[in-house]
Order: sequence, then C-alpha cells, then structure tokens
Amino acid sequence: MKSTGQQGDRDIGLIGLAVMGQNLVLNIADHGFKVAVFNRTYARTETFMKRCAEEPCGGNVEAFETLEAFIESLARPRKVMTLVQAGHATDATIDAVLPLLDEGDIVIDGGNSLWTDTIRREGELAAKRIHFVGSGVSGGELGARFGPSLMPGGSREAWASLKPIWTAIAAKVDRKSGKPIEGARPGKPVKGGEPCTTYVGANGAGHYVKMVHNGIEYIDMQLICEAYHLMKELLGMKPDEMSEVFTGWNEGELDSYLIEITADILQQKDPTNSRRFLVDRVLDTAGQKGTGKWTSQSALDLGSPANAMAEAVFARCLSAQKDERVAASKRLRGPKAPALTSKQKRELIPAIRDALYCSKICAYAQGFALMAEAAREYDWALNFASLAKIFRGGCIIRAQFLQKITEAYRNDRSLTNLTLDPYFNGQLKKGQSGWRSVVSMAAEAGVPCPAFMSALAYYDGYRSAVLPANLLQAQRDYFGAHTFERTDAARGRFFHVDWPHPDRPQLES
Amino acid sequence: MKSTGQQGDRDIGLIGLAVMGQNLVLNIADHGFKVAVFNRTYARTETFMKRCAEEPCGGNVEAFETLEAFIESLARPRKVMTLVQAGHATDATIDAVLPLLDEGDIVIDGGNSLWTDTIRREGELAAKRIHFVGSGVSGGELGARFGPSLMPGGSREAWASLKPIWTAIAAKVDRKSGKPIEGARPGKPVKGGEPCTTYVGANGAGHYVKMVHNGIEYIDMQLICEAYHLMKELLGMKPDEMSEVFTGWNEGELDSYLIEITADILQQKDPTNSRRFLVDRVLDTAGQKGTGKWTSQSALDLGSPANAMAEAVFARCLSAQKDERVAASKRLRGPKAPALTSKQKRELIPAIRDALYCSKICAYAQGFALMAEAAREYDWALNFASLAKIFRGGCIIRAQFLQKITEAYRNDRSLTNLTLDPYFNGQLKKGQSGWRSVVSMAAEAGVPCPAFMSALAYYDGYRSAVLPANLLQAQRDYFGAHTFERTDAARGRFFHVDWPHPDRPQLES
Repeated sequence: MKSTGQQGDRDIGLIGLAVMGQNLVLNIADHGFKVAVFNRTYARTETFMKRCAEEPCGGNVEAFETLEAFIESLARPRKVMTLVQAGHATDATIDAVLPLLDEGDIVIDGGNSLWTDTIRREGELAAKRIHFVGSGVSGGELGARFGPSLMPGGSREAWASLKPIWTAIAAKVDRKSGKPIEGARPGKPVKGGEPCTTYVGANGAGHYVKMVHNGIEYIDMQLICEAYHLMKELLGMKPDEMSEVFTGWNEGELDSYLIEITADILQQKDPTNSRRFLVDRVLDTAGQKGTGKWTSQSALDLGSPANAMAEAVFARCLSAQKDERVAASKRLRGPKAPALTSKQKRELIPAIRDALYCSKICAYAQGFALMAEAAREYDWALNFASLAKIFRGGCIIRAQFLQKITEAYRNDRSLTNLTLDPYFNGQLKKGQSGWRSVVSMAAEAGVPCPAFMSALAYYDGYRSAVLPANLLQAQRDYFGAHTFERTDAARGRFFHVDWPHPDRPQLES
Repeated sequence: MKSTGQQGDRDIGLIGLAVMGQNLVLNIADHGFKVAVFNRTYARTETFMKRCAEEPCGGNVEAFETLEAFIESLARPRKVMTLVQAGHATDATIDAVLPLLDEGDIVIDGGNSLWTDTIRREGELAAKRIHFVGSGVSGGELGARFGPSLMPGGSREAWASLKPIWTAIAAKVDRKSGKPIEGARPGKPVKGGEPCTTYVGANGAGHYVKMVHNGIEYIDMQLICEAYHLMKELLGMKPDEMSEVFTGWNEGELDSYLIEITADILQQKDPTNSRRFLVDRVLDTAGQKGTGKWTSQSALDLGSPANAMAEAVFARCLSAQKDERVAASKRLRGPKAPALTSKQKRELIPAIRDALYCSKICAYAQGFALMAEAAREYDWALNFASLAKIFRGGCIIRAQFLQKITEAYRNDRSLTNLTLDPYFNGQLKKGQSGWRSVVSMAAEAGVPCPAFMSALAYYDGYRSAVLPANLLQAQRDYFGAHTFERTDAARGRFFHVDWPHPDRPQLES
C-alpha cells in the first residue's frame, strides 16, 4: 500500500514499547514534543498508555492500533523511530513501515544494530529516497527516561530535522565543569547545558561508535571487577570496606558513573537477609548481549590492537563456565597465599587504583584508535573531541575522564593515540609503578587480572620501538616463504632466505 | 555443458599450481598415483611441467590446457582438488568444474577456506549429488612436498575413495615414539609409520580444525618470541647464545619443529654480512593471513575463552604499527632497567622455559576447548585423540607435546580441559612458580609479554571457583535491569533489585 498523503501533527512516532522505548517516549513527551506510539502487540501499548496517564507529559503521547493510522498521524517529513531487537526484527519493522512512507521521510533505528546492517539499510532506503539514521542510544533505562547519550549516524539532511528533538532529550552536561547535570524527574527534564548528542557520521558511523562505547563499557567494568577481586583476595576486605575505597576513588580522577554505582552496590545489604551483603550472594556468571564481542571482532578485522577489550569479553565467557571452574578449582593448584607486610598492604590500595586508572587510559586509547581505524576503513569523518564530549553524560561510561579526553583531542585533532597526550602520558608516568607492582603481585599470588595485564602488555608493546616480531617473520619465512623486510632496507622491499639450500642465499622478491 | 561420459585413468586432478599445489602434486606422484593438473594460466602449467621433468615421479603427472580435457582424464569417481585462494577464487573454480562432473564425483578444497564457506559449499554440492571435502593441508611448502598433515572434513563416503591417496601422501610418525619420520626426498617418500590424516567430521569440520591449528601456530610463535624478547632485554643475550638455549629446550618437553627452526634461525648469519646475525636485521613487523583472526573471532562467537590466542593476533597487529611504536618509544616512559643479581640471571632462563611451557599448555587447552565448543555448535563428532595424533607430524605445530595430548584424550575421551589431565596438571604444578616469576619480572621491567600474561590469567581464572563477575552482574542489573542469579538459589532463577526505589526490594523475574 502507498501513503494516503494524509498529514498529522505528531512530531515523531516510536515503534517498540519495551522498557527502553517506553522511557524514550516519555523523555520526548516531557520536552513538549507530540509522540505517536505503536507496538506489534497492542496489549503492551494499552499498558503503556496507563503509565502515561500517570505522567505529567502523558497528554503528549497518542497510541495507535494500526501501523497505517500511526504513520498517518505524523507531521512531514515523517520521523519513525524503531526500538526493536537488532537483526531480523529491525528489518521486519522497516519492511512493514516502508510502503507507508513518502520520499523525504525519515526512519531512525535506535536499537543496538550491527553497523554493517546499518550501512546496508541506509543504502537500501537512500535508493528509495527515504532518509535512514542509525542512532546509538546509551544510558540504560534511566538514561532513556531522563537523558541518554545519543549517537546518530546516517543522512545528514535528516539530522537537521531530528536535531531539535535529539538535543532536547539528550543528557546535559554543565558547560563549565563538563559534569552531567542531574536531578531530572518526570515532567521536569533538565534544560540548558550542553547536550550529549552530535551528528557522528555517514551511514553506520553512529552504531559503530555506540558499539565501541559498549566495548569500552565492558573493559571499564572488568577493570573495576579486578580491583575488587584483588582487594578481596589479597587484603581480605569486606564489601562495605571496599565501598568506602570506591567512594574515595570517585572523588578523584576516577570520578565516574560506574565507580559510583560500584560503591553503592558494595554497601547494599541482601534484601533477603540484612546481615549479609548482596554482592556476596550474586552468582559470578556474567551475561553479555554481543556488542563487546562485535567490538573485539571488528578490532581483529581492522588489525587494530584492542587486546584489553577482548580480554574483558573473554573474562565474561570464562565467568559463565561456573561448573567447570568449580570442578577445576579442586584440581588445579595455585601458589601459596602471599604473606603481605603491613607496609605492602597499606600501599596496595593506592597501587590498585593506579592499575585501574592506567589500564583505563590504555583501554580508552584502544577504543579511540579502533574508531580512527574504522573511520579510515569506512570513510567517516569522526570528530573525537565531539565524541568524547557526548560520552560525558547520559551513557554508562560517563566520567570526568571523558572531559580530559575531550581536551586531549581538542588540543590535537590528529592525536594518534591517547597515551601520547601530555596529560595522559603524565598520568601513566605517575601511575605505572603501582600498576606494575599490582600486576606483579597478582601473578605471584594467583589472582587473575587479565585486563590489568593485557593493558600493561599493550602499553609496554606500544612504547617498544623494537618488538620480537623480527623472529616471527623469520619463522614465517622459514616454513612458508612469507618473506621479510629488513631494518637496513627501504620499506616495501621483501626478502627471502632459501633456508633448505646449503648456503642459504638471500633472494629479493 | 554436461559431462561427456568419458573416463580417464588419472587417480586425481589438481587445479591451482602455486607453490603449495605444485608440491602436493609431486608428493602424490611420488607415491605412484597418476595426477592430472590444470592451471588457469597455462604458462604456469608449462613451467611446472619443466620442473616435473626433472623429478623422478614426473612421468606420473599429466598437464591439460582445457578444463574439459582435464576432467575427462580422471578415473571415476572423479577426484578434483582445488588449491586456489580462499573465497571468490574457490567459488569460481568450483562453479567452473561443476557442470563437467557427474553424480558421485568428488570435489576437494585444499585451501585455507573459512569453515562456514565449506559448510555452504558442501550443502550446495550435496544437493547436486556431488561429494565435497574440505581438507586442511598443513606443513607449508615442505610439508606439501614430502608429507603434510591433512584434515579432511565433509562427505564420509568420499573419504573412502580419498583415503588411499591421503594416507599415502600424509606425513608419517613412528608408531612407537610418536615422532615424525624425516628424511623424505624426491622419488623417495616416507612409507610406513602412522599417517597424519584422519577423517575429521562432517562438512566444515576439516577446515575448522585446520583453522584452529593455525590459531595455535600463532600463539606457539608468539610464546617463542616472548621468550626470545625476555632473554634479549633482561639478559642481553646474543642470537647465537639464545640459539643454544633453544637447542637445549628442543631436547626436552618443548621438542618441536618451531623451537627447532628458532634455534636454527638464531644462529643464521646475515647473508649480506657474515659478521652479523640475520635476525637482528629482520624488520619486526609481522604479517598475517587471517586464520588466527578467524580463530579468535570464532572463539568470541562461541563464547569460548581463548584470550591467549587473541593476544597472539593482536601482538602481530601491534608489531605492524612500526612507525607509531618508534614515535611512541620516544614519548612514553618505562621503568628503570632492573638490576638482576647473578642468581636471578641464572634462574631466569629455566623460568622462561617454564613460562613458555605452561603458557603453551594453556594455549592448547584453549584451542582444544574451542574445537569442543564448535563440535557442539555444528554437531561434529570430533575425536581429539585422533586430531592430536595427526598434528604430531607434517604440520607447523608438530611437537612431542602432541603425543602427550594424544595420550591425554586417549585416557579420557571426555576430558573437559587439557589442564585437568594428570600429566599436564602435574607439569603446570611444577612450572608455575617460574612462570609467575617471569610474568612478575616482565611487568616490573617493562618487557611486553601479552601471551605469557594472558595464559596465566586464564589459568588462574579457570581454577577460580569464584570470579568477580558477581560484581559485574550487579552492575548490569543496576544500570540495565539485566537481572542476576544467586549463589543460594537454583540456577535459572533470575533476580532484580529495584535500585532506584528507596527500599531496593528484590524482585524475581
């Protein structure tokens, strides 16, 4: 069927009323925009409308039972946002909507889609003169409700139409301090401040950046877990004691949402038994939804070293093998528990902080270097200062740290690697002694720290003018005639030694 | 066009006369089989036929200028092996051959194809009643010529026809010692002994196993490089001194092809200046062809912890960023060079050996666990004792070590993880103190050891009944309502805390 040509007054329509969708609708409505909503199962729409009725902004939301009526309710150019499962469900939704749209209308995918799908969809819709925008939405349920970080990529023309809504509903940071402005509540959204959204780049750029954001989130969480694990295993600390440590860290350079909620979680009593801490009763098997995995796989494809990010994913995989680990723990021996002197104990907590902070710098360096590599591969004009800026609020990785990254890229737009920025370089100089001692102690004590270790190996590898890959290339030439370059010849000249020959002459290919 | 129904006398036909193809043809011919050869560019075929003329077995090789004549020369069921580039070239070759074949004929892909392509091709050809076998071929050029390790997967019926050729041309190991039988030369192939080939499993199983073999090869090489790097950086050893160390190691548990060629490479003088060692002039930028990357990506997809294997790939990526590293080396500071006591120096070489050996055990544990996971995913009946057996000879990772793995799986077919085998468990117990001290020293000294470190983190994680993922799940529940399981409730019960609620009640979903 073809559009009826009808024109409605709704500023935007949203399809998919799971929690994220519901909250985003209320956020948009809170800012005075008129929203149309549609869900495949109408019962969910009805439940949501009851929720709307209790919200100050509920009058701005109108529900539709058919897709046709939903589309007809929208003002031109129509803006239809889907927030359904990535993959088939997203394709099916777009396919259903497409026949009802006119040229110049805009489809927005707010799900966690794989960026290559977004590139494909953008191309397919552009051929039909429909604008397509893949917009990452970060910040979980609360972010969606009161201010997420939004990473739109795709049609730049469409962005002009979306910008008023996107900048209104995004999280805001204080223009001076760069800190998130908190305190939004239903009917009283945050206004003013710098919005955490910007046009990211063409086609799949928004979803790619959102994916890397999630990959960074994986490593941020893993680093915190390793710090917690070391305090627990080496110092025998209780959750509430560790909560105090994280609270203290949250007042310095590590000031961030994830550190803040960690401090909060660690002081949380078990709701079923107030004499215990909840964290001690939570099963140690991590789930994952795929974006961390995609980030690591993309890094492998692009040849961009992101070992710490991959370690964070594998750490989750290993955690999921609970039964195997329990069985193995009875068979595989570790070292004797180290007897720490009281001086060592005293110094360990600041050293763990340094390990966490330095590893974090390296992990972000990997994430931003990966985005730079993807930008080259896909021809996106990414602005890293802007990206760091929109990560400062709304999203899960929001942190004071991102203000520093913003400044680093503002000072040097062509910064190759975050570790080279004078500020971060200085922090690494200052923190590395503690970092090294923590890795060293963890190795001796048998506490697994894959992320601390891999970040350190990355740092030491990246600052090595010479790595042992000369031997590796010689091996490859030996068994596979893969050739090698020479330190004393121009790059691009390839040599081969005829190893089986008695004289082993060197040939040039 | 359809088959002319003509029948020839050639036992097998091979398409693709690059080095691997040429050598494989000569290997087959050396064993008395009649081989037809075809190459897209006939000039290469002519050059090859000149080479054949100088070989004792040359009379067994017949060249064809057209694909039609090539196919007609084959005995029924026709066996057509392609050894062309993985991907499009392989598809194009199969497409060209297919119309000339009859039901029951056999197409063999001997390239390094992605296993999912092999699964697809096997399905497509089976629908046309053509057998398809994806056969991994390992051992580089020399292996192809005098005895590779062959990993055929696909049609089991076709395997019966291929078996006489495959077992004849494969590398052989001594039935008693499990060691490769060396000494083949043109016209005098190795006969007798146990052949390094076995039917691997259905459709893509052979190519999958070959891929993991290559992933293991990546980590084997990286571990050797890290050992070399530590001896060079911490002990200031010269290549010939290190060559002696590797020669010594090659007489013990580390006895393997890669250690052997490392010892050989390290004593190799520069062909352009005999006062220098060649390895010192080889540029430290590693290349890669993709199978290591695929292995890591598959591990991520299957959720199978294979961090050491991914580290080996990322180490190559980092080595390739030569210019960036050289620039970074001038800006990023490391620790002061450690002053080792002579006792520490003396103990370091055996400790590095232990680090290499223990890391190797863990890396192989990851590789075999990954194959087990893939077998579950793709419904392959992999026999790990047989696979370890065929890795003992012919291929790049061939080693005494694989005899031990064979025995481990022979003793316990359902062994979950190689580290749990009593022999390897014992070796890890013995070696871990040295391994830990090396990792600890590398961290303090600033020498990057990503593979030693990640393998250690894996070992310590795998033997941890409790990992810190409890905190991680609590974080995920906090910001994303992802729920968690409890240590004191049955698996499969999912809980959620309503974190924003003042009382934070626990809900069950």
